[in-house]
Amino acid sequence: MTDIATSSEGWHWAPDGGLVAGIPSKGVIQPPQSVTSSDAMFDVIVIGAGYTGLTATRDLTTSGLKTLLLEGRDRIGGRTWSSNIDGYPYEMGGTWVHWFQPHVYRELSRYGMINELVHSTDYSKRHNYFSFATSSGRRTMSHEEEDELFSRAMQKFVNVDGDFGKTVMPFPFNAYWNKDVLKYADLSVADRIAQIRHDLSEDERHAIESFVLLCSGGTAQNSAFLDFLRWWAAGNYDYRTLLDTIIVFKLKCGQSEFALRFFKEALATRNLSYSFKTAVAKVDSTTDALVRVTTRDGRQFRAKRVICTAPLNVLRKIAFNPPLLAEKREASELKHVNQCVKVHAEIKDPEMRSWSGVTYPNNKLVIGLADGKTPAGYTHCVFFGCDDNHIHADDDIDETLKAVKEFAPMDVNRLVFHNWSKDEFAEGAWVWYRPGMEVKYLDALRRRQNAVLFANSDWAAGGWRSFIDGAIQSGTEAALTVRGELQVGPRATHL
Amino acid sequence: MTDIATSSEGWHWAPDGGLVAGIPSKGVIQPPQSVTSSDAMFDVIVIGAGYTGLTATRDLTTSGLKTLLLEGRDRIGGRTWSSNIDGYPYEMGGTWVHWFQPHVYRELSRYGMINELVHSTDYSKRHNYFSFATSSGRRTMSHEEEDELFSRAMQKFVNVDGDFGKTVMPFPFNAYWNKDVLKYADLSVADRIAQIRHDLSEDERHAIESFVLLCSGGTAQNSAFLDFLRWWAAGNYDYRTLLDTIIVFKLKCGQSEFALRFFKEALATRNLSYSFKTAVAKVDSTTDALVRVTTRDGRQFRAKRVICTAPLNVLRKIAFNPPLLAEKREASELKHVNQCVKVHAEIKDPEMRSWSGVTYPNNKLVIGLADGKTPAGYTHCVFFGCDDNHIHADDDIDETLKAVKEFAPMDVNRLVFHNWSKDEFAEGAWVWYRPGMEVKYLDALRRRQNAVLFANSDWAAGGWRSFIDGAIQSGTEAALTVRGELQVGPRATHL
Repeated sequence: MTDIATSSEGWHWAPDGGLVAGIPSKGVIQPPQSVTSSDAMFDVIVIGAGYTGLTATRDLTTSGLKTLLLEGRDRIGGRTWSSNIDGYPYEMGGTWVHWFQPHVYRELSRYGMINELVHSTDYSKRHNYFSFATSSGRRTMSHEEEDELFSRAMQKFVNVDGDFGKTVMPFPFNAYWNKDVLKYADLSVADRIAQIRHDLSEDERHAIESFVLLCSGGTAQNSAFLDFLRWWAAGNYDYRTLLDTIIVFKLKCGQSEFALRFFKEALATRNLSYSFKTAVAKVDSTTDALVRVTTRDGRQFRAKRVICTAPLNVLRKIAFNPPLLAEKREASELKHVNQCVKVHAEIKDPEMRSWSGVTYPNNKLVIGLADGKTPAGYTHCVFFGCDDNHIHADDDIDETLKAVKEFAPMDVNRLVFHNWSKDEFAEGAWVWYRPGMEVKYLDALRRRQNAVLFANSDWAAGGWRSFIDGAIQSGTEAALTVRGELQVGPRATHL
Repeated sequence: MTDIATSSEGWHWAPDGGLVAGIPSKGVIQPPQSVTSSDAMFDVIVIGAGYTGLTATRDLTTSGLKTLLLEGRDRIGGRTWSSNIDGYPYEMGGTWVHWFQPHVYRELSRYGMINELVHSTDYSKRHNYFSFATSSGRRTMSHEEEDELFSRAMQKFVNVDGDFGKTVMPFPFNAYWNKDVLKYADLSVADRIAQIRHDLSEDERHAIESFVLLCSGGTAQNSAFLDFLRWWAAGNYDYRTLLDTIIVFKLKCGQSEFALRFFKEALATRNLSYSFKTAVAKVDSTTDALVRVTTRDGRQFRAKRVICTAPLNVLRKIAFNPPLLAEKREASELKHVNQCVKVHAEIKDPEMRSWSGVTYPNNKLVIGLADGKTPAGYTHCVFFGCDDNHIHADDDIDETLKAVKEFAPMDVNRLVFHNWSKDEFAEGAWVWYRPGMEVKYLDALRRRQNAVLFANSDWAAGGWRSFIDGAIQSGTEAALTVRGELQVGPRATHL
């Protein structure tokens, strides 16, 4: 762990060490602060150092704007960060990327990182099968059979228009381009399943529910159908392509290394000041031409513009003056549904590298899959649960281990995870709206309030809203708007 | 044509007016020069105002670097530009984009232009069919039959690995990630067809040849198979997705409007000087720390760095000192094969809006398709020829009209086109290598020579090399490199 500091966030469990809070990450910034009193006035203050805030910060600082980045955590990345353990990254949140995600891929390409992409899947080992344990029983099948089952089931699920969604949602990056799609706005995942129930086998129903709950992190009742249709459209209206785009290609170096590129590029401009472990309490844009930001520890900073990147579920915790738009506040109080549980396990069996499985609906974890080979030569598996049958892994590690072993007999060498539900700066994982919520609140969530802009993947304009791609899109847009308003003049040449 | 200047480039023909050189375009920059003598020294000189040069120029100027943009033409856009006639854009070169092209889509998103995307195809009109005229005869089929034929044929063409190319080229953005793919490096399109000839019907062979020649603009003998495999991989290893990504979605406002966004953003920084109608004669990086660029009209400019974006086929025309690397020079003398002929026709029949067709191998134009509805309510069709049975449309307009009417009876109201083969700044269209050429020369083409960087879609690193996407990728990369080297310090705040 040379060079890598330990975050106060995340959990690590091992048979000998037990459960320990805090895990190492390249994303921890040390020293946590680089801001002097003379820096108390800025062009822009960016609240939050997730990909949205990092992108905005980079674009602003490289444009010559004096920028202060404030972050409540001790690390960059927000809902995306890696714990680097023995040189191997376990992704606590956002993980997979793909060249069909334009904003994130443009950045990977720009930073010369496209050769960092590696496959999560490797079907060359002995336990090369999919285990499917449902209320109908427990069995295994080949990955080809798994794909065939899930593809058939998901096609039934999305086929509202006889064209697998392509007619009602022809532009995934503008989901409501065809207003006809709005008639599905109030439909929950459960509602949609009820509509097609007569045409579904038990296996197909279990396939739909387990896969969609993996995506939404909620329950079938509280998860909007429309969010899934958008993911499906963005994944080229095809199950295999959707998998490829959202759960196959990850970064060998880990997401925190990628996030660091943004931070370091901003830092190199010498236009960046920052303060980590610095939660924002108040944002006041009433008193004068400058916005005042007050931190929980009582410091005040001023800037011409503020870009607030607090996620939907915690936006209400910052005191804005003038107050948050009523719709913003309402949406933040309603909250989106994603209470995803993501638990990494190092399994003492290299042959598990080719495994995946579902245990649903009777287990605390729903989907598991082999995700890599650890430095010890063991298999790294990742497990997902949701708000249905939810577990706080840190509250009951024995129950968590039991849920892991419910998939298959496994000798667990370590667990690594972040409890997003208890996370005070997120209160959940990637966005997944309740039925009707997206259509009702998206416009308001995107609206600025005077000199304060609101940017986050949770309400990003693109097809990959709720993904890293959406975060980068949202941060790019906010920075461009601010730069246009504070148009930077010519720099004296240093020839 | 209010507000829209006329370029000296392009051709317009109408039954009454005959053939006229020069067509209106939003991409024409007036006045053509904004450079004073005191500007004779710059941070960076960018040679060429295509998407590569425009992207680099924007990224440099917005980073505070004093940049001079030199362009031989009277307009921006390079091999991509629109003639706006009665408010309707005819695309002379690069046209279609898609959200699976990360660099171009990121820019469309950033400029708030994603709602500018429109479908080229509209299958709601009466002449809703595909006409297929080959040496086996002439007939029509439905578009579904067309897709089925072409999809089946192209799958045979690319299926070198039993996995439709996915095994040998799993990462389209790093085409040679799997070194096994290099065994196809010397294969021409004709060679590949010969390998599978026994398994091809005459229809399938004609489908492959006409489609691949549409892509390559060359001949079956001189076009590399590997370039096609890369396009195929980038299009998700699927004919329908490939079509969607390369020939379906275009910009309602026209490409020149998009290109203008880059130019205007650069201009707003006040760090941009430019000179159009200014061909570069010499680039000298030997004499001192500064590179000297001499224009054909004898002016000299100096800069710390030069980004040269001259395309492959004309790179040899600039005198570099020290001279171009031997491999660069050799590649530029060999030239890539794309001599695409692209002719737009306004057809006095609204019902042709749903038509497409192939005439091969006995016509001067190979593929035609309806591409839009003109302000007069007529159908806009676009026709493509290649180096096989090549025609200079401006040399023989009657032969060109005959080639158009060979597809179907058509009452032609106007023709609009650009002769890329005679274009002194391009000598061809988008890049398509000869067999073996890509593998042999790509590394050298990308290599810098001291303070001179070479950027172009022709040797872009991405999967969309030869597309607008590759141009933006290449320009982004060059600007980032230069900015890193001339690291800009903090700007005095103007609070």
